[in-house]
Amino acid sequence: MMTIRRLDSRDADILIEGAQARAETIGVPMCIAVTDEAGQLIAFRRMDGGKVTSTTIAIDKAFTAAGARKATHEYGQASQPGAPAYGIASAIGGRLMVVGGGLPVMLDDEPLGGIGVSSGTPDQDRDVAQAGLDAFNAHLTRLSSG
Amino acid sequence: MMTIRRLDSRDADILIEGAQARAETIGVPMCIAVTDEAGQLIAFRRMDGGKVTSTTIAIDKAFTAAGARKATHEYGQASQPGAPAYGIASAIGGRLMVVGGGLPVMLDDEPLGGIGVSSGTPDQDRDVAQAGLDAFNAHLTRLSSG
Amino acid sequence: MMTIRRLDSRDADILIEGAQARAETIGVPMCIAVTDEAGQLIAFRRMDGGKVTSTTIAIDKAFTAAGARKATHEYGQASQPGAPAYGIASAIGGRLMVVGGGLPVMLDDEPLGGIGVSSGTPDQDRDVAQAGLDAFNAHLTRLSSG
Amino acid sequence: MMTIRRLDSRDADILIEGAQARAETIGVPMCIAVTDEAGQLIAFRRMDGGKVTSTTIAIDKAFTAAGARKATHEYGQASQPGAPAYGIASAIGGRLMVVGGGLPVMLDDEPLGGIGVSSGTPDQDRDVAQAGLDAFNAHLTRLSSG
Repeated sequence: MMTIRRLDSRDADILIEGAQARAETIGVPMCIAVTDEAGQLIAFRRMDGGKVTSTTIAIDKAFTAAGARKATHEYGQASQPGAPAYGIASAIGGRLMVVGGGLPVMLDDEPLGGIGVSSGTPDQDRDVAQAGLDAFNAHLTRLSSG
Repeated sequence: MMTIRRLDSRDADILIEGAQARAETIGVPMCIAVTDEAGQLIAFRRMDGGKVTSTTIAIDKAFTAAGARKATHEYGQASQPGAPAYGIASAIGGRLMVVGGGLPVMLDDEPLGGIGVSSGTPDQDRDVAQAGLDAFNAHLTRLSSG
Repeated sequence: MMTIRRLDSRDADILIEGAQARAETIGVPMCIAVTDEAGQLIAFRRMDGGKVTSTTIAIDKAFTAAGARKATHEYGQASQPGAPAYGIASAIGGRLMVVGGGLPVMLDDEPLGGIGVSSGTPDQDRDVAQAGLDAFNAHLTRLSSG
Repeated sequence: MMTIRRLDSRDADILIEGAQARAETIGVPMCIAVTDEAGQLIAFRRMDGGKVTSTTIAIDKAFTAAGARKATHEYGQASQPGAPAYGIASAIGGRLMVVGGGLPVMLDDEPLGGIGVSSGTPDQDRDVAQAGLDAFNAHLTRLSSG
């Protein structure tokens, strides 16, 4: 039997709120998704003005990052023509995302879940996802020093 | 050109918080989804202990209720063997939900969106969705009398 | 080699216009789809106020009626529990529709295409689809007597 | 609550008629689709000789352009190997189109919907979609000066 740790609903809120605060700062309304370590959706928010087409993309970025324990932009590099993972972008019915904006949520080298952001440029999406991660890590630090 | 009204992100929070409060009262962790009037997801929450299989079901209940402007349990009655809409349950790749727990969010006979709840019995799901709707309607009343 | 006849784009307009006129008369905004005899979409119209969930349903009713050369309500009877085609409603990824509102467009016992209507009750959908068919048949009569 | 504007059924006709006129001029029968601002189909036409495989492609180009408020050819540039959005072409089950021929319908920097065209070369598709947009913009100008 295994015992695992994963994000709970409150953690997902912290991730989304951290990401949303950054999205508001840069002025780009985003779709933001958080999954657990199994890639299953915990929470989702489409900010007013977030793109309809980004709903599934944000969810799938979080799914990819959590399930593969890898940032989606890393897949972007590994899946270029001639690179080892070329073609992976269309795997899992197109759910495996290789565009930046999906980050795994890790603790002690173990995955707790993933966050996925979409509606801006891939760099903006990644920046906003990182802000969610930063907020969550700050929360963990407060907990452990509390 | 048409001008329409739809739920925004803050409205979706009110709906989800109202539903979650009721889910906590009856002790059933739920998946809760809110879509806009076009059936596109605005917000989703899986409470700790909500069923993984209920994620898509909750989203599709909200989609069905918003898009068809009809409670999903009404489709349940209309789609029984021998009834006029028998067989509709597998339409749209199975997204059209006929199980209770999806309610349209209406204002002045126009759809603003939908709420979908899943993880309990269909009666529990419907009860929790209604609590979300009640919270939203109370919010509208406060606004109009404010 | 086979030579077949099928609806063209102008025929599809006549079918849709005939159906829309009837939908306006009964005051139910509809989704209306016309396919060719291969079940491939020729034309689609969502009237203002037609249901978003009915888009795919109308298209799939036309697809079913054209491809199977059978009214979808006939499948409704044949697919009841205990009847020979029980379970067919979920075939083809749910595209095979057994709810009324899909009618084949036939000429000399050969299929030319199909019309599918959705947004009302199944009886209303069927009534509106029939009006489209009537308009097309009147057009054929005018042509042959012209 | 948000108040938004979107294309209605008459607007969709104007877009399709404008596109079709251009398609006839260049002698390429096209599939032409128009969605509302949420990416939901309002109207579709496959001209006689339009490609069957282009039906879904035209619909998905309109969906992408409306939902992302971006021309699909812009995604084509941004998704080349080595570019930031590489791999996006297979997102949303392959619905996100990066081939030219999808254009958003914008008014005052807000999306009203999208038009998608397919059956020709991507340049022809884009040219025909633009003609639909031009016809709609001419219509708006007539309205505002009328």
